[in-house]
Amino acid sequence: MSQAVETAFKGKTALITGGMGFIGSNLAIRLANLGAKVTVLDSMIPDYGGNEFNLAPVKDRVRINYCDIRDESALDYLVRGQDYVFHLAGQVCHLMSLSNPFPDIQINITGTAVLMEALRKFNPNAICVYTGTRGQYGSSVSLPVNEEAPTNPKGIYEISNLTAEKIIKVYNDVHGIRSVLLRLSNIYGPRSQMKHSRFGVCNWFVRLAMDNDAIQVYGDGSILRDFCYVDDTVEAIIKSAVTPKAYGEIFNVGSDIPVSFLELVKTIVDVAKMGSWEYAEFSAERKAQEPGDFYSDITKMREIVGWSPTTTLEQGLEKTCEYYRKNRDYYWSKAPAERALKDMPAAKEATATKV
Amino acid sequence: MSQAVETAFKGKTALITGGMGFIGSNLAIRLANLGAKVTVLDSMIPDYGGNEFNLAPVKDRVRINYCDIRDESALDYLVRGQDYVFHLAGQVCHLMSLSNPFPDIQINITGTAVLMEALRKFNPNAICVYTGTRGQYGSSVSLPVNEEAPTNPKGIYEISNLTAEKIIKVYNDVHGIRSVLLRLSNIYGPRSQMKHSRFGVCNWFVRLAMDNDAIQVYGDGSILRDFCYVDDTVEAIIKSAVTPKAYGEIFNVGSDIPVSFLELVKTIVDVAKMGSWEYAEFSAERKAQEPGDFYSDITKMREIVGWSPTTTLEQGLEKTCEYYRKNRDYYWSKAPAERALKDMPAAKEATATKV
Repeated sequence: MSQAVETAFKGKTALITGGMGFIGSNLAIRLANLGAKVTVLDSMIPDYGGNEFNLAPVKDRVRINYCDIRDESALDYLVRGQDYVFHLAGQVCHLMSLSNPFPDIQINITGTAVLMEALRKFNPNAICVYTGTRGQYGSSVSLPVNEEAPTNPKGIYEISNLTAEKIIKVYNDVHGIRSVLLRLSNIYGPRSQMKHSRFGVCNWFVRLAMDNDAIQVYGDGSILRDFCYVDDTVEAIIKSAVTPKAYGEIFNVGSDIPVSFLELVKTIVDVAKMGSWEYAEFSAERKAQEPGDFYSDITKMREIVGWSPTTTLEQGLEKTCEYYRKNRDYYWSKAPAERALKDMPAAKEATATKV
Repeated sequence: MSQAVETAFKGKTALITGGMGFIGSNLAIRLANLGAKVTVLDSMIPDYGGNEFNLAPVKDRVRINYCDIRDESALDYLVRGQDYVFHLAGQVCHLMSLSNPFPDIQINITGTAVLMEALRKFNPNAICVYTGTRGQYGSSVSLPVNEEAPTNPKGIYEISNLTAEKIIKVYNDVHGIRSVLLRLSNIYGPRSQMKHSRFGVCNWFVRLAMDNDAIQVYGDGSILRDFCYVDDTVEAIIKSAVTPKAYGEIFNVGSDIPVSFLELVKTIVDVAKMGSWEYAEFSAERKAQEPGDFYSDITKMREIVGWSPTTTLEQGLEKTCEYYRKNRDYYWSKAPAERALKDMPAAKEATATKV
């Protein structure tokens, strides 16, 4: 079993790659509040997840280092003295990876190798946690999907995550760098980018509702997914980091309560008390890319790490709406009336997005 | 079923990446003899497999283009007008990939993406065959190993091959570039590099025997592998290229007759009529890296492509020894007496090598 996270990180050092992004910043805040000395690495690539405002609550308590994960000499310094390394930096857009595979290969694969080489050379005693994606599985062969399921990714982004995971696993097995390999499902909550619809489908729907727009539900909306609130996800990450039995292991992080897109959208409109939803036709292209029903089997995480999500979809969406109502100007700028018509094509992309 | 290879390639164009290497050059010769217009691409990286002498039999009938698989603008030209692209270029050393992961990521992963992007943009109608490795499986879960087995590679080299395969599969599925994905077992025969022991274990043993050295057999020599003669392998490659049902599919290429290392070594010494063998202890490090028994299930290849190997181990080794007896000076230079003592450490590496 894991140490109690309430005491495990006090006075410990932690490096978070991609720490200005959605999950990274929530993790940084949680670790800082647990008394850890946090260094955040982020290259702030435009249109990726990084946002300085994300770290506002801890801005005087975390060290921010702007640099690219591929920066070998910088990484060689940054990893030194870190008790924990949380590796969240990456290109995360499925569609972009299909039009240009190189950012994914360079950032997600080469970047991971740069980090692991830095650890091998300068800090092999660090404990590393990697966050990959449920997209590594591709279409589900059976449901719920457990960690033994075949991995047939449908895009270069998902391949790059699988490759990064396998690289870290080799560094765990061959070079002894203790690592936990997580495969995250659809994560939502505060501090996600809200400017475009290319990743983070649940949060994008929240924006549409808050802009009083219509959310489009493709087909009959019956496709199932599991959505996991970001605070639960952060807890999975830190709990696994202090669970020796988790080292070298792959875990799903998600929810075993599947939700249809229709139910999701109805809940969002209810919770936001704004917006609406409507049915829309699948395009042939979207249909081909749609991996079908997916929800995670989280038994392994529950049994070995002692983690399971505690936030219901309604609770998570309440918190999400509350955060963006308060801080909307830091995430998107247009007033609803201004953007309603102009941005409809972006809204149409919504169900094609992946976490 | 496949078209008859005897007529299928007449007047057709074919690009072979890594075409000066072991399998690539044997393929180039076969295709040229079948009447194809062959272009060979090779960057001739020192200590990799490239050797100009490999193409001696067809040197006036194939076009040689020296360039790196990562050379985007060159590839954009080279792929044009090719009916077939055989993608064999790569870093293939397991041990090297564990001390430096970047050549594998750059050459095997990025290089594959460069090739597939060139095809997507400039020749999406080409048919592509990729040769990966049985190392993509890692340790066998059950024997013989079929294409549905889990893929848990034990090194960065093997990960890079798996990633390249998955990238090509996405280009097949999403961009319609018809591709066959092969996973080769231990291939041996003429035109392999013979200068060092870092890959091509069977051929390295042939060299040791021909140098009248002792071949070391680790442990009790009972570990099983399947060895496939290079002419059979070439036939698998070209037959799958002209089998429409093979497009988008993964196939093992090997032999379903497993052979122990002890049996292999005894056969080599018998056939070479030189050399000897002796037992040696596994080092702890080698033991950890040794993936255990492995032999391929080639049922899928037999049923869909109509291919199975026809060369026995004895026949293959006879041909291999004959080739290197005749052409030894083009592959290694030292006389037996000269190198016997000096090179023993290299010989000790032998069983750690992978195809």
